[in-house]
Amino acid sequence: MINDLNDIVNRVVKETRPSLGQGRVANYIPALGAIDPRKFGIAIFPLNEPPVVYGNADEPFSIQSISKVFTLTLALEAYGADLWAYVGREPSGTPFNSIVQLEQEAGLPRNPFINAGAIAVTATLLKQQTVSVFLDHLVTFVQQIADDETISIDQVVARSEAETGNRNRSLAAFMASFNNLAAPVEDALNAYFNQCALAMSCRQLARAGLFLANKGLDPISGRRLISPERCRRMNALMLTCGHYDGSGEFAFRVGLPGKSGVGGGILAIAPGHASIAVWSPGLNERGNSLAGTVALERLAKRTGWSVFSQG
Amino acid sequence: MINDLNDIVNRVVKETRPSLGQGRVANYIPALGAIDPRKFGIAIFPLNEPPVVYGNADEPFSIQSISKVFTLTLALEAYGADLWAYVGREPSGTPFNSIVQLEQEAGLPRNPFINAGAIAVTATLLKQQTVSVFLDHLVTFVQQIADDETISIDQVVARSEAETGNRNRSLAAFMASFNNLAAPVEDALNAYFNQCALAMSCRQLARAGLFLANKGLDPISGRRLISPERCRRMNALMLTCGHYDGSGEFAFRVGLPGKSGVGGGILAIAPGHASIAVWSPGLNERGNSLAGTVALERLAKRTGWSVFSQG
Amino acid sequence: MINDLNDIVNRVVKETRPSLGQGRVANYIPALGAIDPRKFGIAIFPLNEPPVVYGNADEPFSIQSISKVFTLTLALEAYGADLWAYVGREPSGTPFNSIVQLEQEAGLPRNPFINAGAIAVTATLLKQQTVSVFLDHLVTFVQQIADDETISIDQVVARSEAETGNRNRSLAAFMASFNNLAAPVEDALNAYFNQCALAMSCRQLARAGLFLANKGLDPISGRRLISPERCRRMNALMLTCGHYDGSGEFAFRVGLPGKSGVGGGILAIAPGHASIAVWSPGLNERGNSLAGTVALERLAKRTGWSVFSQG
Amino acid sequence: MINDLNDIVNRVVKETRPSLGQGRVANYIPALGAIDPRKFGIAIFPLNEPPVVYGNADEPFSIQSISKVFTLTLALEAYGADLWAYVGREPSGTPFNSIVQLEQEAGLPRNPFINAGAIAVTATLLKQQTVSVFLDHLVTFVQQIADDETISIDQVVARSEAETGNRNRSLAAFMASFNNLAAPVEDALNAYFNQCALAMSCRQLARAGLFLANKGLDPISGRRLISPERCRRMNALMLTCGHYDGSGEFAFRVGLPGKSGVGGGILAIAPGHASIAVWSPGLNERGNSLAGTVALERLAKRTGWSVFSQG
Repeated sequence: MINDLNDIVNRVVKETRPSLGQGRVANYIPALGAIDPRKFGIAIFPLNEPPVVYGNADEPFSIQSISKVFTLTLALEAYGADLWAYVGREPSGTPFNSIVQLEQEAGLPRNPFINAGAIAVTATLLKQQTVSVFLDHLVTFVQQIADDETISIDQVVARSEAETGNRNRSLAAFMASFNNLAAPVEDALNAYFNQCALAMSCRQLARAGLFLANKGLDPISGRRLISPERCRRMNALMLTCGHYDGSGEFAFRVGLPGKSGVGGGILAIAPGHASIAVWSPGLNERGNSLAGTVALERLAKRTGWSVFSQG
Repeated sequence: MINDLNDIVNRVVKETRPSLGQGRVANYIPALGAIDPRKFGIAIFPLNEPPVVYGNADEPFSIQSISKVFTLTLALEAYGADLWAYVGREPSGTPFNSIVQLEQEAGLPRNPFINAGAIAVTATLLKQQTVSVFLDHLVTFVQQIADDETISIDQVVARSEAETGNRNRSLAAFMASFNNLAAPVEDALNAYFNQCALAMSCRQLARAGLFLANKGLDPISGRRLISPERCRRMNALMLTCGHYDGSGEFAFRVGLPGKSGVGGGILAIAPGHASIAVWSPGLNERGNSLAGTVALERLAKRTGWSVFSQG
Repeated sequence: MINDLNDIVNRVVKETRPSLGQGRVANYIPALGAIDPRKFGIAIFPLNEPPVVYGNADEPFSIQSISKVFTLTLALEAYGADLWAYVGREPSGTPFNSIVQLEQEAGLPRNPFINAGAIAVTATLLKQQTVSVFLDHLVTFVQQIADDETISIDQVVARSEAETGNRNRSLAAFMASFNNLAAPVEDALNAYFNQCALAMSCRQLARAGLFLANKGLDPISGRRLISPERCRRMNALMLTCGHYDGSGEFAFRVGLPGKSGVGGGILAIAPGHASIAVWSPGLNERGNSLAGTVALERLAKRTGWSVFSQG
Repeated sequence: MINDLNDIVNRVVKETRPSLGQGRVANYIPALGAIDPRKFGIAIFPLNEPPVVYGNADEPFSIQSISKVFTLTLALEAYGADLWAYVGREPSGTPFNSIVQLEQEAGLPRNPFINAGAIAVTATLLKQQTVSVFLDHLVTFVQQIADDETISIDQVVARSEAETGNRNRSLAAFMASFNNLAAPVEDALNAYFNQCALAMSCRQLARAGLFLANKGLDPISGRRLISPERCRRMNALMLTCGHYDGSGEFAFRVGLPGKSGVGGGILAIAPGHASIAVWSPGLNERGNSLAGTVALERLAKRTGWSVFSQG
């Protein structure tokens, strides 16, 4: 099958090529805006088979919102169902940084993958640890599941996030005004800006997501990270909410649980099959990687891995 | 396996029993409000195996919004991707009858499963046929896929819908004011109120949905109804949008594409496995069958049919 | 003083001239779109002095939303404070035809001068009379207060309104769905479309509004139309709500209670001083007469009639 | 006339008595929540006549949002029409602390009297001075126009405001994220929380507002504070926007430009007649003084000072 997968990836790459360099690179911080928009990498880790990688798959990029998957994993392990007192589980129908829904629903964010929801999740993790202990914990966790100790937070990006973070500051203060934030506003933001600045390559990211494709068990280390039921639910959240107000479109076209970041990365999970990471910095109008989405659409079609085409 | 499934259904029914009679029966029209809230039926049609049914599975009920699945099937066959000029594919984040999103997005409804979107879909089907020809066509189509010529529209319900239909009238007129409705307002509403009044039993409904669990091919008749790709996409839409602003919760708890109706029915699809229909009139606060959702949650857990737990 | 006023009007006209022909003429119905945008008329009826008129002051135009002042007068006489069960008294902060606020406030329109509110007011007047009796009554009332029996409804405009009235149809059906409309949807709309099609000249309009400048008493006929207190309140409503989401701007620049119509007319009241009507078909971005607003701003400045510059 | 006014005040007080102690005292900070809800004071400064005071008219209270009138005066003097690049002039149709409108209008607040707008106004005043210089300037200005050097900022209240100020922090950061805030977020908030903590009595407040009733000229000191035109416009803003989403109701019932504060104070201006301050801590459901509004309604009725009942 690995030869097949190599063939498939080659075809997918060919089909994706016309989309490279299209879209707009995020430029709200200099470190992101300076990236060459023609970069493209993909890494596929099938269960129990060697990975297939292509292009700039070993170049670290800013994973940004994809980090929300890792903090949600930690928060669910720490608090279980109590976490849902701080954040909902519904698609938002609004852009990633919208505050309208927060006012209409008294400061409770719709889901853990919009900015407000992710800040709320991170805040819960600060209930019993300082920001720096949290960040150490997070980096160590990601290093372990990616099996790579070189992963780190890009301090330049983290500082830039903080300097341009007034929209997120507004979201955090808004939740705090309803007593729906479990940590002080500046602590929550400090932790959040740093987690978004995690730098990872496609290879590291796909490796790190492998447990989500295998019912919560890392198939390489044999380590159980979360229960099968929690794994199923995390995939459900990624499918319905992982791409902001483009989540329906992604489900429609690709049919895989996934989480995108404004740095141009997407982590996609094919339950029972593989963990996949793509990276291309040009974004579509919803803020998701344009070429990355095309590549995943082609890949899902050629592999039949869509969760909606079983059997 | 069929014995297993019988066992599973027995357990599911037992686990669901405490929820029976809970929730609120829709009472905006007399015909719905008069139903005994303790009714409960379930029908499961596995691919290539005999169906398993339980309880009031042969009692016809008003399928209401579940009809949107059938009209969407017809409209996609008739117009293909051109249909998306009239309706979007994103979860709405708002209740089934909300008009706020319509104003913010210039009369284009978010998806085919909220009321506005379904009215828009039905209107496209009236571009080349009268309301009565459309309704004949729809009933014949449903009879064929359900393999049961007794299925019909409940005229009492249809008339009541029309009499109490001002909210839907408002939605239709709003879209028409943006020239986003392909038929005259009253024609679109007349067709829509009638399609919602289709009366079907769980057995008929599960049978009718079988093609959606089998990549678009009816496994019993051998008739291809839609292409595998379109089937995959319809399942994606049902998963992300099938339960209004409770869609995220349903995906999280059940993990199956589905479509609920205010009559208390839910059609759920386990791709590659089975088509399932449940019915219990008491609704939860999102307007979806309370006991029906519990039953599907237990069933998905016991069968492992969630689309998020493959492999 | 009348010479002074003649002088003032001449200066105002001169200052307004550069604005003539600017703005966009409403073109949603042919009868409105065909008007020459350079038309301009003004009529000022001071209390107890002869009127001063200028330009196209005797040419009838479609008064459109200005009719809401007359139906509100009738409804307050008929129902008094009970009317406020059907409509609020707050500025809306949204465009004239917005439905968002209606959903957020359960079908109760913000004020009598946005479309939804005016339809609600007209509907109350249909509680005890048919549409045609209401229209006869309305036309007779306007003829009396304008002292001119030639005033009539433009049937061509009325029919066009009905044909293009889906947005208003949507608003009416929406209120009806909350049982907040006192008449059947089509009756309310029929009456509303006709009242909007009243054709009046600046002279007729300013004459008709004279009672509002004189504490409810027509100073020419000596007839009391409404109590001083009600008159004061109607002026308050016109000031805070008379120009949709441009009401604050109008109060800031002009400082007079007023009501504008999409036909390019504005009726303005200088309490204790005069009733004024201007007409110029080009509209600003808020849907109010561009040159008409300029003329009123200059007039208020030169006369000192702003309600905010007493003493 | 002064005897008349004494008589009128006595009657107004009598008519207001049943409302004393009703409403809810603001309790988001301890210093406000501890006030006796039955307190009531009124001070009326007619032009060119001695003031009439009653009740707790010499007891300082927290003027809160009434301070927005004074900072707007300073900002218009400093920047003139350039100020309107930072803030609009329309009623908001939403509560005082709503952020929904800010998102819909790209960070530009609707008017200077909602919280976001007032923070924006204060931020412009920090363009060329530090927070402490601004506060010195503001206090000196208020002392001068109130002719009382004892007026000061209540430091306990100011600190409490800062501690509970997350909603305002959210508004400020939101505007900053759109580059619509002319000062750093924390500076703008620091200045704003202090200005809201100004403590003044009814006597001081009514005296301070006298210039607004006299076309911008302080009739006692003879000092011109603003031009007649600007005065007229400030009164227009107070009338259309001075009471949040209760502004229409206040105009309807009272008919005077005014500005209320959550501490229970209201400053009302009768142009050409008088400046009036009332204080009673119990608030109505819109956040405006319940008994204060009743007193002003009765006073306006008995004096005929409503701007809508001239002549």
